[in-house]
Amino acid sequence: MNHSHLKSMANAIRFLSIDAVQKANSGHPGMPLGMADVATVLFAKYLNHNPDDSKWFNRDRFVLSNGHGSMLLYSILYLTGYISIDELKNFRQMGSKTPGHPEFGLTSGVEATTGPLGQGFAAAVGMALDESILKKQFRINHYTYVMLGDGYLMEGISHEVASLAGHLKLNKLIALFDDNDISIDGATCLSCSDDVEKRFLAYGWNVDEIDGHDFDAISFAIEQAKKSGKPTMICCKTIIGKFSSRAGTSSAHSDAFSEEDIKQMREKLNWNYEPFHVPEDVKNAWKKTVERAKQNYTMSFQRVTRKEEKEWIPVSSTGMTRESTGMTEENAGMTGYHAELQRRLDKHLPDNIAGVLADLKKQICELMPNEATRSSFGRVMELLTESMPELIGGSADLTGSNCTKYQHMQVINSNNYSGSYVHYGVREHAMAACMNALMKQQVMYVMTHDSIGVGEDGPTHQPMEHLASLRAIPNLYVFRPADAVETLECVSIALEKKESPALFALSRQNVSYMRKFYSDIDQSANLSKFGAYILCECSKKLKVTIFATGSEVEIAVEAREKLQEKGIGTRIVSMPCWRLFDEQSDEYKAAILNNDSIKVAIEAGSEMGWHKYIGSNGIFIGMKSFGESAPYKTLYEHFNISADHVVKCVCEKLVYIQ
Amino acid sequence: MNHSHLKSMANAIRFLSIDAVQKANSGHPGMPLGMADVATVLFAKYLNHNPDDSKWFNRDRFVLSNGHGSMLLYSILYLTGYISIDELKNFRQMGSKTPGHPEFGLTSGVEATTGPLGQGFAAAVGMALDESILKKQFRINHYTYVMLGDGYLMEGISHEVASLAGHLKLNKLIALFDDNDISIDGATCLSCSDDVEKRFLAYGWNVDEIDGHDFDAISFAIEQAKKSGKPTMICCKTIIGKFSSRAGTSSAHSDAFSEEDIKQMREKLNWNYEPFHVPEDVKNAWKKTVERAKQNYTMSFQRVTRKEEKEWIPVSSTGMTRESTGMTEENAGMTGYHAELQRRLDKHLPDNIAGVLADLKKQICELMPNEATRSSFGRVMELLTESMPELIGGSADLTGSNCTKYQHMQVINSNNYSGSYVHYGVREHAMAACMNALMKQQVMYVMTHDSIGVGEDGPTHQPMEHLASLRAIPNLYVFRPADAVETLECVSIALEKKESPALFALSRQNVSYMRKFYSDIDQSANLSKFGAYILCECSKKLKVTIFATGSEVEIAVEAREKLQEKGIGTRIVSMPCWRLFDEQSDEYKAAILNNDSIKVAIEAGSEMGWHKYIGSNGIFIGMKSFGESAPYKTLYEHFNISADHVVKCVCEKLVYIQ
Repeated sequence: MNHSHLKSMANAIRFLSIDAVQKANSGHPGMPLGMADVATVLFAKYLNHNPDDSKWFNRDRFVLSNGHGSMLLYSILYLTGYISIDELKNFRQMGSKTPGHPEFGLTSGVEATTGPLGQGFAAAVGMALDESILKKQFRINHYTYVMLGDGYLMEGISHEVASLAGHLKLNKLIALFDDNDISIDGATCLSCSDDVEKRFLAYGWNVDEIDGHDFDAISFAIEQAKKSGKPTMICCKTIIGKFSSRAGTSSAHSDAFSEEDIKQMREKLNWNYEPFHVPEDVKNAWKKTVERAKQNYTMSFQRVTRKEEKEWIPVSSTGMTRESTGMTEENAGMTGYHAELQRRLDKHLPDNIAGVLADLKKQICELMPNEATRSSFGRVMELLTESMPELIGGSADLTGSNCTKYQHMQVINSNNYSGSYVHYGVREHAMAACMNALMKQQVMYVMTHDSIGVGEDGPTHQPMEHLASLRAIPNLYVFRPADAVETLECVSIALEKKESPALFALSRQNVSYMRKFYSDIDQSANLSKFGAYILCECSKKLKVTIFATGSEVEIAVEAREKLQEKGIGTRIVSMPCWRLFDEQSDEYKAAILNNDSIKVAIEAGSEMGWHKYIGSNGIFIGMKSFGESAPYKTLYEHFNISADHVVKCVCEKLVYIQ
Repeated sequence: MNHSHLKSMANAIRFLSIDAVQKANSGHPGMPLGMADVATVLFAKYLNHNPDDSKWFNRDRFVLSNGHGSMLLYSILYLTGYISIDELKNFRQMGSKTPGHPEFGLTSGVEATTGPLGQGFAAAVGMALDESILKKQFRINHYTYVMLGDGYLMEGISHEVASLAGHLKLNKLIALFDDNDISIDGATCLSCSDDVEKRFLAYGWNVDEIDGHDFDAISFAIEQAKKSGKPTMICCKTIIGKFSSRAGTSSAHSDAFSEEDIKQMREKLNWNYEPFHVPEDVKNAWKKTVERAKQNYTMSFQRVTRKEEKEWIPVSSTGMTRESTGMTEENAGMTGYHAELQRRLDKHLPDNIAGVLADLKKQICELMPNEATRSSFGRVMELLTESMPELIGGSADLTGSNCTKYQHMQVINSNNYSGSYVHYGVREHAMAACMNALMKQQVMYVMTHDSIGVGEDGPTHQPMEHLASLRAIPNLYVFRPADAVETLECVSIALEKKESPALFALSRQNVSYMRKFYSDIDQSANLSKFGAYILCECSKKLKVTIFATGSEVEIAVEAREKLQEKGIGTRIVSMPCWRLFDEQSDEYKAAILNNDSIKVAIEAGSEMGWHKYIGSNGIFIGMKSFGESAPYKTLYEHFNISADHVVKCVCEKLVYIQ
């Protein structure tokens, strides 16, 4: 592949990008023009991938963290056979596979949803970490490339993930920095004086600086990076909007070009074609790069026949048998390795999990522990992680308090990736983002210390608006279990949500075992799966329904006793997950909501959102301000989150109504 | 002050800290034991402050970013006369001035609310930036010291603020890093391999490393730092929990010590006193340090008599006349400088502001502009910033799009601090945290591009849960104005909220001028101050009330027309600020909410919270998922946020009811 070929191939990216932005009258041409050369070398000579099997597990990953330059990636995906030319013509339009910023799951060949600055970098670090762990278990072996710009490196998350990657020596991670000295407001020197090279050396990275328009330099840098024992940052000096009249200026970043601009650019580069047209020889040059990539794909499958690698059978996304590779079911066999990897890719739970959970539930129901739900969570996960090696966990320097590490778990570090626990350090944002939550990933987020129940650490450490914030996020299941049984039930549900993240808000303080108040003797039913359920029925005519979650269910039960004593029939609804309740049938919801009763909600947080269930006139018992520093029982009294206050409010309401 | 004195003074901090943690049976002794020597040298020899005038504007600032070690600061505040010994005995108890983490506004001598890791560092950078700006205008002249630990430097925000401070060469900022190699999970090497020195050099900082228990080294480092033309990071190698049996281990971080531990420590340090007792000679040594500090205070006021500094009159927090300094009203005079500074400290608006706003409102009412509310905001602030030099603004590399910089504004940079605009770079978190929003600071946060109205940039750029998240935060006024007049009214309100931050959610797309639908001819009344008001009354019997905010008010008005045509009396309530509405009288609220009508809310975001106003059975028209990438009008149709859909839902409801 000589320079003349590479030039034309890069120019194909440039013109497709411009043509699409012009047609949409929206988008960002500056980055694709600047990074076309780097991207061409990477895809043409190095990236292992296969458009016919885009989910091949052992492919190299390419993450476009600077997702605003999405047309760079879409152009390549067209030229390598992932998407059609019509998709480019539909850039940024409703229903297309070419949205403004790349979206994982929507477009074949897109590895990560990017756009929010720094998130793609974090996702790439997560992928590289994943590769490091899996290569020990399955001899997985691939690189993760991530492209990013100045702004991404200014974001705080870039510090967290780069520091983590350096610490863990993720040497299969190669970052390509579009070092063009231009930000939206103007030259980067307006706002930043960082020495990026020195900064990344401080993180323990390998750092290189090259001319991002010099094909040989790009190749050499990538080859050197692949040999490095550390993650590599290649600072590619480029010109934003290269070859356009706005080259080297911030005005090249977004906005469509003028027709005159584009005409001049076509003349300058001798690209005398209609919009969206790529000449055959350039198309063929790109096709050849796919053939190169596919050879590696085939080799990867054929390696299985070598005696010493018998156990290693890389899997394709479409199944096990690959005629094209000459591999038959017979020689592939169904080794333990293969079956296990396939199970994880399919997100199938191990066969014994249902039994493990059922046994544990029985134990808990007998034990009736009064314990913090963070401890209950630890109790459940201690067992689960033993049976599920795919559960990789960690904590941002609060391992003991979060109850997230269990005796049998080994720590992952740069000398040994075969464990399943990551000490993330005080890098919460990196920890969350590495796990790619924007991409419908099945991640369990553990947030302990979930209210004023934190006590003496005071208002800076007491969540207030957090439950409301989290519940407002689409597709996130927020669980706030009341006791050990609900915690177990909620974990079981999260395991089944293959396309949703789950969040566990867990108490620091001990809570009483609540399920004992449930009348039915059958312990096997998962009551939490309804989102809300009647924990205690009233023993008189129903006048009051109390909704509560987590540590406040205990208060609800206490209030109910006092109300019943006064002859006021009271029902308790425990509500560990709003979203699950919203998904129930109208009949079920109507029965639980019972609009004829006086409705009360108790939660030691913001009222935001509760009125959907208790109505405009419902009584909310919770927080209206930030918290205070004191022992937690004092705080509950101080903020009137108590059974007596519930009783008082209900009685006032009854007088008002009568 | 010889070493023996300093040792005893530091040990006083150590034992007071331990005694308080023991008594509370809660808290963090490790940090105070480790950093007592550094803190003693700083307060004894360098910090300019005055316990009798704790708000003295020209004092040095000390920010304890590692706020968990609050007893270090509280001990010093007791020893220097800010708080009583009883407060130490009440550590972490309800109503005390010594909460778990320091809180600004609650405790005299506490400069920033800290606890969330990295926030105090950000606040300190904000303070140092403030000093740089004000020293040009008022010859303000003081240092900002910030103490922090490993965890703070792992957080992403540390990167953003350190990079900003380096870029702006904030040389009056001196950071004291508790470099003890210990985190909660264990040795810091478990999770971090950063070379902190190299990292901060990359940011353009001056860096030093010292033995944090060597008094001379501490003094020398601070003196060198004060001479530096850059911000300084002093890495103080210390031993966490020094002199205790848990010295140098993570178990020293929190948890009370055993009685035996403490007994041994008292013996080792020859500190044979009852808990909370400090011997007279040590108390006196601390008192002397206050005298030193007060001398600088007095000198600062006396300098006014020097001819060349006549115009510079530093102000005290308690007023202008200071007998103690020998300064009389006569020699102090009331120079323009002084009056202006006093005005800003008192947060008084300039006299002409009301007139400026009234004139502009009149103009807008005549002009009736159809424009994006981000542009309306720019229109208002363009004028305000001319009259209010205390308005310091900025953007995270979206200046043009946010409409936050105006023609007359000069940019603040390291060569010239006399401007009023900061190019923050892509550092949103730093930008917000520098302005200290956790501390009831009067900050206006501008969030433009506030919905799917962003259009083609797609779901990663379209806010969804954000309004709900923000509205759930105590004491934050969230404004989402519908047009230019509401924008102006909301800005006027924010200017009056001296103890609350305000947030403006503003559209990218143009919106129609809505106030023209308001019948009353009097333009001077600020309707937005009610939070919600009747924009259009129904012209028939009231059957439907439609609530809407921001860009969706336009849709509400369109829907109303269609409903009225069908004979369905419909009223529009524009609701630019929920919190203000919640603060109104019950009568006003009942009149607006009108529970007898069918209620509809339209907002292109999450439904979270709306049911408080529209009831459990109200109709919510908005978003249930993340957005899509397409032109914004297409998106509004796609997500059924349209007048026709409102009409359809209302008609269905009417059928259902009848």
